[in-house]
Amino acid sequence: MSTRTLQLGCTFRYSSLAPTAAVFQVAAQPSDTVSIKDENWTVTDDLPLHHFRDVYDNPCTRLTLPIGVTTLSYSALATVPDAFDSWDEDAPEMAPTDLPDDVLLYTLTSRYCLPDLLGNQAWKRFGTMKPGYQRVAAINTFVNQWLSYTTGSTTSTATSVDTFASGQGVCRDFAHLMITFCRAMNIPARYVHGYISEMDVEPTGRPYDFHAWTQVWLGDRWWDFDPRWDSPRKGRVVIGIGRDAADVAMVTTYGAPWMQLMTVTSKEATE
Amino acid sequence: MSTRTLQLGCTFRYSSLAPTAAVFQVAAQPSDTVSIKDENWTVTDDLPLHHFRDVYDNPCTRLTLPIGVTTLSYSALATVPDAFDSWDEDAPEMAPTDLPDDVLLYTLTSRYCLPDLLGNQAWKRFGTMKPGYQRVAAINTFVNQWLSYTTGSTTSTATSVDTFASGQGVCRDFAHLMITFCRAMNIPARYVHGYISEMDVEPTGRPYDFHAWTQVWLGDRWWDFDPRWDSPRKGRVVIGIGRDAADVAMVTTYGAPWMQLMTVTSKEATE
Amino acid sequence: MSTRTLQLGCTFRYSSLAPTAAVFQVAAQPSDTVSIKDENWTVTDDLPLHHFRDVYDNPCTRLTLPIGVTTLSYSALATVPDAFDSWDEDAPEMAPTDLPDDVLLYTLTSRYCLPDLLGNQAWKRFGTMKPGYQRVAAINTFVNQWLSYTTGSTTSTATSVDTFASGQGVCRDFAHLMITFCRAMNIPARYVHGYISEMDVEPTGRPYDFHAWTQVWLGDRWWDFDPRWDSPRKGRVVIGIGRDAADVAMVTTYGAPWMQLMTVTSKEATE
Amino acid sequence: MSTRTLQLGCTFRYSSLAPTAAVFQVAAQPSDTVSIKDENWTVTDDLPLHHFRDVYDNPCTRLTLPIGVTTLSYSALATVPDAFDSWDEDAPEMAPTDLPDDVLLYTLTSRYCLPDLLGNQAWKRFGTMKPGYQRVAAINTFVNQWLSYTTGSTTSTATSVDTFASGQGVCRDFAHLMITFCRAMNIPARYVHGYISEMDVEPTGRPYDFHAWTQVWLGDRWWDFDPRWDSPRKGRVVIGIGRDAADVAMVTTYGAPWMQLMTVTSKEATE
Repeated sequence: MSTRTLQLGCTFRYSSLAPTAAVFQVAAQPSDTVSIKDENWTVTDDLPLHHFRDVYDNPCTRLTLPIGVTTLSYSALATVPDAFDSWDEDAPEMAPTDLPDDVLLYTLTSRYCLPDLLGNQAWKRFGTMKPGYQRVAAINTFVNQWLSYTTGSTTSTATSVDTFASGQGVCRDFAHLMITFCRAMNIPARYVHGYISEMDVEPTGRPYDFHAWTQVWLGDRWWDFDPRWDSPRKGRVVIGIGRDAADVAMVTTYGAPWMQLMTVTSKEATE
Repeated sequence: MSTRTLQLGCTFRYSSLAPTAAVFQVAAQPSDTVSIKDENWTVTDDLPLHHFRDVYDNPCTRLTLPIGVTTLSYSALATVPDAFDSWDEDAPEMAPTDLPDDVLLYTLTSRYCLPDLLGNQAWKRFGTMKPGYQRVAAINTFVNQWLSYTTGSTTSTATSVDTFASGQGVCRDFAHLMITFCRAMNIPARYVHGYISEMDVEPTGRPYDFHAWTQVWLGDRWWDFDPRWDSPRKGRVVIGIGRDAADVAMVTTYGAPWMQLMTVTSKEATE
Repeated sequence: MSTRTLQLGCTFRYSSLAPTAAVFQVAAQPSDTVSIKDENWTVTDDLPLHHFRDVYDNPCTRLTLPIGVTTLSYSALATVPDAFDSWDEDAPEMAPTDLPDDVLLYTLTSRYCLPDLLGNQAWKRFGTMKPGYQRVAAINTFVNQWLSYTTGSTTSTATSVDTFASGQGVCRDFAHLMITFCRAMNIPARYVHGYISEMDVEPTGRPYDFHAWTQVWLGDRWWDFDPRWDSPRKGRVVIGIGRDAADVAMVTTYGAPWMQLMTVTSKEATE
Repeated sequence: MSTRTLQLGCTFRYSSLAPTAAVFQVAAQPSDTVSIKDENWTVTDDLPLHHFRDVYDNPCTRLTLPIGVTTLSYSALATVPDAFDSWDEDAPEMAPTDLPDDVLLYTLTSRYCLPDLLGNQAWKRFGTMKPGYQRVAAINTFVNQWLSYTTGSTTSTATSVDTFASGQGVCRDFAHLMITFCRAMNIPARYVHGYISEMDVEPTGRPYDFHAWTQVWLGDRWWDFDPRWDSPRKGRVVIGIGRDAADVAMVTTYGAPWMQLMTVTSKEATE
């Protein structure tokens, strides 16, 4: 399979009035099809970085922001398939009795994904469809059409019920709504935070940002779906995976430092 | 036009531990096409009843429930057209600039009807339709199909956003959602609490109850719509009209008397 | 009683892409103690203004904003007592059985004031206090201390439950929370939108704005309370009174004109 | 230290119309101070049980309920200290910079615990208190006094914001509110589902049930707090620990079997 190489990275600049604990989830994760190399972290005054794994095994980086201005940058090269996300129209839904133990977690209600409140909506729409990949694809299409992509239309406290009612959101909200519908149907679904190649995204006129999408368990594995679009994408690289955005915030700070700058890069490497 | 005569009425029995103020909105209102006669109120120990009109000119009846058990009954004969609610497929929506002053009230947000939160949903669905009676009828059909009629599915604090998300409710919730969509489109809409002839309602196996529906301003008058059904009805008699159910509760008690019994009647009079 | 004269007024400038219906509630209302004179309206191109009264008898002014920029100004002189809001520590709460018919409206749930959801909070805090003016004053003090006055902390969709939980708001939110607690105790309470003399308000460094406060029914009349402060004020002039802010918006526009400018004045007249 | 022996257990009886996946979290967990023996599972027709650990390492038991009636029972003997939960008034709060990596999870927002919405309430009340065990104990006391213990007052969708506003709940809601306040102050807090000896609980007249309480990280370990009471308890045995009740449901069923019976036991063993 032919591959492409992406130059990934991000830079954050914070101004703090007091020493402030911060956790970053920005490092690219390798997978069966994605390899990562040349990872590089740079930080003001060579402040010590502590790398660890969270309960979902996502890489995290801790740092104490000192008083004053601190800049943290991450960069890496990712080799990714020059191909769309894999799919299999015959991938089956598994009965809950047949789901692996560690997948059951992703059928439950969580901070932003409320299948307990939107179950009726899910069953009305998707309950009579033939189970399997096609049904999940139909959920993807439905969410894509239901929501308008509207920057600034949503807040970090919006649940999938809020999003369903308002009819608008950003990629995070699209993912939360799709996850909610899948879980309501007893289909395991989880939230992915990551990079997607800028080349594979329609230009928006806004600065490039991180992306969020959805993984759904069908057959014996997780499959990528991205309700932000209704067509397959290339160029994905995972940063973190969890039940919803509460699990994989790109930055968590304990205090209120001022974020002066954030930039994100995900472009073709020019080697 | 041929007419029918309906025997309307209701009975409430309360048990109170302290003297309790109560306001009833159960009396039938006459209109251009409906006449009311033989109104009769009976109440335990001939307790004094005080009749007054609320800010919307709806008839209300006050009573102080004494300690112990009190029974209040209302009955009347209503002569109604033997015909479906009138309609006019050419009735136009009026631009807000052309609405009468006293109708503007019914374009605003209210306790249970939140056009400020569901405006996006309304405009996506109905924004490109040809304005007028047909568009309002389409809203009626939409609400009728969107919601499942489910007794016990809802509480007295549910707003139209809650109902939109849950996908179920009773006649009150159907009315609130339809009102919300109309107001979001700047079409005045209000809530009607009243009687509907039992003969004109499909049997449900449950005791007959009061009904709630919607009136919408088109052209130069209010028109009845009833999202509980997707087809016209006969046999309506208005009790109260307001912005939503908060304005026209059938009973308001100031304290917590125990309602031991409530029955409602609306059947063909056997004269 | 000595009096003061206030120069009241406001100016709005809108830019419209289409003819847009607009309703303004900005005119000062006279009362037993306040007289209004020299009212003056000026509007771009002498556009026709239509004055009417809403269902609560508040003065309203309609206007169709044409395409382009329109400026509307209102000004008046108000003679007000040079004295604090009147109060009477012996004013009694009335049992619901003894309330006037037209006051009952102000005991019910409404768009922003939800006594049905905060009743437990109200009774826990105020239920054992001696009924009367002092209890209502205690509610005023409680709300004043519970909430932080924080510009920009709230949105136009926030209910009293949202405000109670967030612990912050602007004068509108303070009023809504106080109204909610009063109604939960069966004490009629309503929302007032108006002018308050700039001299009688601590400087905030922000442009002067309209104000909102609360009226509560005790004995045989309405009394002013202002939970925004915990001490009496002078210099109030009423614009509109209703159940909550949904009833007395300073401007309602049907469409989305761009408000380029809003200024409000309420200062000592220099005669 | 003297010990006591508790006879723990529970029985569930379900009626299913279709084969239904079910996961039980009812098994007692040993700890440094609690030992478990004589665990016994009995199930209709010796249906196969599958034991596994969830992402938090809690023991879970899977079972497929066949069509018809299935009864599952669990019992065990637990040896527990005859002593109150340990406490240390000098246990310090740790700065976020000094928290262990795996504890950070318990500072975040979760399904039922919303520090992002109640942060202002937490800081107003507890922000100026001396940090440490005493401050957390003050939070415990506050929650205990804020909420009325009211069976049936709450639903499984109620968040800590709902509970804060309504002022009532059951042990689950008490725990969620305390966790929320701690996290808002950057103090890690988690939810515990378990058994508590019936002898150590005031009689309520209702059947004995499972219990829920709170653990808070102070110094270098988790400490038990139980906002349901404002005084220490004996006789606790942990079943599951998570971020909130969404993580440690006693039973999760995939479908809608009818629970005909549930009993819980936690009493002194008579050896």
